[in-house]
Amino acid sequence: MSGFPASEFEARVARAQGLMEAANLDALLLTTEPEVRYFTGYLTRFWESPTRPWFVIVPVTSAPIAVIPSIGAPLMGQTWVQDIRTWRSPDYEDDGVSLVADALRAVVPKSGRIGVPSGLETHLRLPLNSWYALQAAMDDRKFSDDADIMRRLRLIKSDAEVDKIATACAIADAAFARVPEIAQVGTPLSQVFRAFQGLCLQEGADWVSYLAGGAGPGGYGDIIAPATDTPLAKGDVLMLDTGVVRDGYFSDFDRNWSLGPAAPETASAYARLIEASDTTFADARPGVTAADLFHVMDGVLTGGAGGSDAGRYGHGLGMQLTEWPSLIPDDHTVLEPGMVLTLEPGLSLETGKTLVHEENIVITDSGARYLSTPAPRDIPVIPA
Amino acid sequence: MSGFPASEFEARVARAQGLMEAANLDALLLTTEPEVRYFTGYLTRFWESPTRPWFVIVPVTSAPIAVIPSIGAPLMGQTWVQDIRTWRSPDYEDDGVSLVADALRAVVPKSGRIGVPSGLETHLRLPLNSWYALQAAMDDRKFSDDADIMRRLRLIKSDAEVDKIATACAIADAAFARVPEIAQVGTPLSQVFRAFQGLCLQEGADWVSYLAGGAGPGGYGDIIAPATDTPLAKGDVLMLDTGVVRDGYFSDFDRNWSLGPAAPETASAYARLIEASDTTFADARPGVTAADLFHVMDGVLTGGAGGSDAGRYGHGLGMQLTEWPSLIPDDHTVLEPGMVLTLEPGLSLETGKTLVHEENIVITDSGARYLSTPAPRDIPVIPA
Repeated sequence: MSGFPASEFEARVARAQGLMEAANLDALLLTTEPEVRYFTGYLTRFWESPTRPWFVIVPVTSAPIAVIPSIGAPLMGQTWVQDIRTWRSPDYEDDGVSLVADALRAVVPKSGRIGVPSGLETHLRLPLNSWYALQAAMDDRKFSDDADIMRRLRLIKSDAEVDKIATACAIADAAFARVPEIAQVGTPLSQVFRAFQGLCLQEGADWVSYLAGGAGPGGYGDIIAPATDTPLAKGDVLMLDTGVVRDGYFSDFDRNWSLGPAAPETASAYARLIEASDTTFADARPGVTAADLFHVMDGVLTGGAGGSDAGRYGHGLGMQLTEWPSLIPDDHTVLEPGMVLTLEPGLSLETGKTLVHEENIVITDSGARYLSTPAPRDIPVIPA
Repeated sequence: MSGFPASEFEARVARAQGLMEAANLDALLLTTEPEVRYFTGYLTRFWESPTRPWFVIVPVTSAPIAVIPSIGAPLMGQTWVQDIRTWRSPDYEDDGVSLVADALRAVVPKSGRIGVPSGLETHLRLPLNSWYALQAAMDDRKFSDDADIMRRLRLIKSDAEVDKIATACAIADAAFARVPEIAQVGTPLSQVFRAFQGLCLQEGADWVSYLAGGAGPGGYGDIIAPATDTPLAKGDVLMLDTGVVRDGYFSDFDRNWSLGPAAPETASAYARLIEASDTTFADARPGVTAADLFHVMDGVLTGGAGGSDAGRYGHGLGMQLTEWPSLIPDDHTVLEPGMVLTLEPGLSLETGKTLVHEENIVITDSGARYLSTPAPRDIPVIPA
């Protein structure tokens, strides 16, 4: 099925309200795509337009209120949300501010507190001028951070969410398996990127939100650049890293190929990446921390030197390509069943090139389970 | 060629600095993808990850400074920007704040003013907590809005930008021309969406950032919903609305098809949409306002009743799917050569269904020029 039953959203709201009560918050105010979707199920690519603000209010004791542009009313009307308030946006005098202020004043008592996500990996999707106007319209009510509630909620995926992420991963798996059809010596990398996105769509992606990669002799120089038109050459390592979306949930993993037989140093570096993800996977279980996984992986990759300029060895995954936590020394998030993570080892080679590798896993009661089909033990070779 | 020569960015910076001087601003601070790319040329899909903040500072009398996560250094190093400062992000203690604060304090005198885009269609892509910390680190320097400078700059496209938008539009044109290959009676709409994105990629899109649409008897109920699995049926009108990206610039227009011969009321509604875009196109020239175009179009569509719940009859287009201005009664932007606009008439039918239509145009010295190939005068029919 697409989407979730209302019970999924009711459970999310109930968890949120419990945390809000403990944090002495009277409401949450949410403005970004994943925040709005988390409580409503409202899924649209229309967020690509930055024009209009969207709001969801989650009061501590009552049902969510959607305060949205009227263009979104038909689609929001198909969700479980009952209380939908609209204005005709864009409105240059008052683009939703007084409507959301009215709604907040009605559910938050004077001197009450409204939580707004304010920490790392969040932002307020609202013009600053509208934010200042909204603050001024609150009388005695105060905005504060959200006591980390959105992070705490989204860190733990429900079984239904894990199923959707697994479906996205299976689509990426199937597309990766077909890369030898579209990538040969002489194919421009830009053409590989276009054709690979086509494969992801053929295999069932609703859309392909992310594709990066690289190719070069024995490794690549950069892992976030758009593709150039340089043709693949014998001896190149090709890497593709994709985030496909199915029913609003992401995969995020990559695969490597050698064009022709891999040089010994390439084979050996690849083997070390696999060892790093295998070792970290084996240690991933409830009770260990994100930092613990960083150190396990860093031991394999650098002998414990402390990581690389990429900044981390993996991250959370779900409604977004990347989510909390980060596999870094300072992230002491304790793993729990339902957390979905990427394991993302990387190596800088003596040639100045880079090799990276990535898998997607879910933490279970007894350890971890792969959501991506683990990469081959030896780097796959495309005949050249 | 991909990207732009350094002269394009030098011209942008010079225009910005002239406006900053007039507005008594000592620097601009920019945090979003299009803002960063506008001055640097930094193009990557890595913005899909919300984890890390990125900053560009444009001082009033010196060259731009990029303050970015170290993972972005290799790619930023390929741009014209010379002054690149990095930190290893994510850093839970200080995720770029002190580095950007240092850079700002060095180029902005005490009591100086730093402009931050704050108006409609903008947001600050930075955790609120980091924003508060940055404000506290500025000593006597003050943040203010950007005096509308980013909007004023981006409203007017250079010839090189218009060429890139035209290329994106030509790709969408070619994909739309092939829709009869992929959409027949019985094809699920979700399959049409997947296959259409594949066509856009085959025709040269780097990626497909936006696809919406609908299908139903004589019209559709919603224009921003994801596709359902409902098969196309004889008598349906199918609409696809896409924003394809090529070299960082967007198209944004739609096309309609009738599955089998169109009913007279469908043909007549479609004709009115074409009349609305034709009439508005004929009036689009330097000196008229966005509001003028609204009223021209509204005269054809509603007899001057004042628009619809979609909120507007078109908008700007370029580095984003939608940009300023909006074709609404309150937008008094005076059209100038180099503005790129969508013309987007819509009709609510007596059946409760909707029909929409969209073209992309550029304002020239003598009037307007189509960037999309204008839609057929009669609704195209897919045999059924």
